[in-house]
Parts: sequence; structure tokens; C-alpha cells
Amino acid sequence: MRIAELSRQTGVPVPTIKYYLREGLLPAGELTSPNQARYDDRHVQRLRLVRVLLDIGRLPIATIRHLLVALDEPDPDVHNVLGQALPMAVGGKDSVDPEVVQAARTRVDKLVDERMWMVGRNAPARQAAAEVLAAFEQVGADVGVLLDQYADVAETIAAHDLDFVGRARDAEGMLYYAVVGSILGDTLLAALRRMTQEHESAKKFGIRGDDC
Amino acid sequence: MRIAELSRQTGVPVPTIKYYLREGLLPAGELTSPNQARYDDRHVQRLRLVRVLLDIGRLPIATIRHLLVALDEPDPDVHNVLGQALPMAVGGKDSVDPEVVQAARTRVDKLVDERMWMVGRNAPARQAAAEVLAAFEQVGADVGVLLDQYADVAETIAAHDLDFVGRARDAEGMLYYAVVGSILGDTLLAALRRMTQEHESAKKFGIRGDDC
Repeated sequence: MRIAELSRQTGVPVPTIKYYLREGLLPAGELTSPNQARYDDRHVQRLRLVRVLLDIGRLPIATIRHLLVALDEPDPDVHNVLGQALPMAVGGKDSVDPEVVQAARTRVDKLVDERMWMVGRNAPARQAAAEVLAAFEQVGADVGVLLDQYADVAETIAAHDLDFVGRARDAEGMLYYAVVGSILGDTLLAALRRMTQEHESAKKFGIRGDDC
Repeated sequence: MRIAELSRQTGVPVPTIKYYLREGLLPAGELTSPNQARYDDRHVQRLRLVRVLLDIGRLPIATIRHLLVALDEPDPDVHNVLGQALPMAVGGKDSVDPEVVQAARTRVDKLVDERMWMVGRNAPARQAAAEVLAAFEQVGADVGVLLDQYADVAETIAAHDLDFVGRARDAEGMLYYAVVGSILGDTLLAALRRMTQEHESAKKFGIRGDDC
């Protein structure tokens, strides 16, 4: 199909598609003349993925490019790439004191060791967790008990996530499901969590939003 | 303290503090002369909160202003405000087909009814969940089983979150903990989830990141 048809099928404007092509978020079409390229269903699928990662995952363009490169590689380090997509692992945050982050990192490493999680020493998620722990401390909230409870919950979630990935048809599909499930799953979980928080509040304090 | 001292204590540059004051993220100091104001420890604390919500929570300025107004009000609708802080509830997303979102919304409402969650009919989290479900569908991933598993997990998380809030000293502190815990908690959970995903992958497929 021509670029106009790709635009029609996906609802993405032609100039935006051209921008994604330039940014390497979308592989080039097959050239049929010096000025024209042909696109196929894989472009449609890839374009939809880019849009939801931008819109729902709120990922920066550079992070999406990383993820897509990983999807296309024969032997990708998916965990490392997905870790880099975490909100915090995008460079030093000056909102938290580096010394506080360092102490939090020690705490995270201890948690991983105690739970015997097989997680790379340099996994971005370790640093991301340390930064958010430091942020809790910075605003004066004691997160000790919560950390352990969340770690329990995370173990359950990951088991579900692996089942989800296992429902893909083939190896390529599994990688695709891993990316989609990780990024969109964060948001799904956050939305469900808001609802259950409201429910728990209503039970405990009788605080309610609008009419249930 | 003067604005220079506020800057020193928090590490936030003076021009940035002035910007936050103009944007209503920080309450005005007490005027000591036409050109000078005095700030106190509440400004220090508020400034730290703004920074972590921006940096770690990655919230837009307008959302943070909403949250802070809620924190300052005598009888705030916290759930509604926290729901609006969800990644998706920031206006219609053109990456997902409105009809698909509508169908997903029906599914979310059914889930809430079946689980007898006390959640406002117009809670932003309902729509947020519907949009992310629609996004899963849009990229061809079947999320049916996962949704139910995540709903179970969310119930556990919310119970922990309420315990966390209950550890605050007073009513004002509880509200503060609710905001901090909700926003930073999403990121903490995401980071822990990446680690447990890596661990589960390593167990199941022998896939590992760098040396454990």
C-alpha cells in the first residue's frame, strides 16, 4: 500500500508517519520509484504499536526506538531495554540527593539478594527502584513495610506476566507480548489500583467519589 | 528564610522556584517588603513534593497543581484527583479507536460490578482502564485473563496502600501519604515488576541480563 493508505488504515497523519520514518520508529517501505515506497501489514502493526507506546506508555521517542530495535534483533536483551523504559531510569534526577539514592540502592540490592531474585547487577530497574525509594524518603514518607509488601505482590504479577507472554503464538510474538505487556501493564495496574484504592477507602473511611 | 535560602536547602534554582510560584505550585511567601518575601519549612516540604511529582511521577504541571489544590482543601475528592493523574486520563487518545474504547469501558464497568468495588460511575480510573484495554486490543494482544489476575493483585495492593496511609500522623498527613503513595507507588511497583519479570524469565527460559 502507499503511505496515504497506511495513514488511512491507522488514522496517523502522513506527516507524522514521515516523522516516524525519519526517527527510525518505522522501517522504510519498499521503494517502487525514487519518490514512492510501498508499505505492508507489518507497517500497520508497527505504527499501531508506536502510537500506543507514545500515548498510553508515554515513552520518549528515544526509548521507543530502543524497544523497537530490541524487537527486531535476533537475540535482544529485553529486560535491559524494558528496564530503561522505566520512568526514572532516564538520567540523574536532581530532585533526590545522590547520597540518599546510594543508600536506597544498597537497600534494593539487599532485597534482591534476600529474595534470591535473578536480576542483573546493572539492571536499570535496580537503580529505578532506588530512586523512587529515595524520593519517598525525601518527602518524609516511611516506605519500609510497603517495600516488602510490594515485592511480594510483584512476584505474583511477574508470574501472571510470564503466562501472558506464553500465550503468544511464536518467539517473535512472545517478545512483542513482553514489550506490550510490560509497558501497557504498568498503566493497567495503575488504573486498577486507583479503583481498588477508592473501594478500600470507601470501606474504611466511608469516603466516596461520585454516586456508585 | 529568603528565597535564596529556600533554594539552597532544596537544591532548586531560584528562577525555577519563581516559576513554580507563578504557576501556583508553591504558595506565596509572607511579604516582608514590596520586593521580598519570607518562606518557611512548609515551603521546603512543598517544593520537595513538587520536584518528586515532576521527576519521578512525571506528572504534567497542571496535574500537580490539581493535586496540590486537593491537598490544601478542607474536604478534597482525592480519588477523583488521583484518577486524573493517571497517564491516560489526559484527553482523548487518537491512538485507540473510540468504539474499541467504548466496548472496553463496558468490560471495565462489568468487572467493577462483579467485584462489587465501590467506585464512582465517573471515576477517571474507569476510563483510564478502558483506554489501556483498548490499546492492548489495538495491538492484537489478548488481555482477558490478565485483566482478572491484575484485578486480584490490585485488591491486595490497595489494602497495603491503605495501611501505608494509615501510618501517617494526622488527617493532613494521611492525605499527603495518599498522594505520595499513589504516584510514587506506581513507579515503585513498575520497577519491582521489571525485576521479578527478569527473575521469572531467568527461571523459565534461562534468559538472563548481565551477570547476576
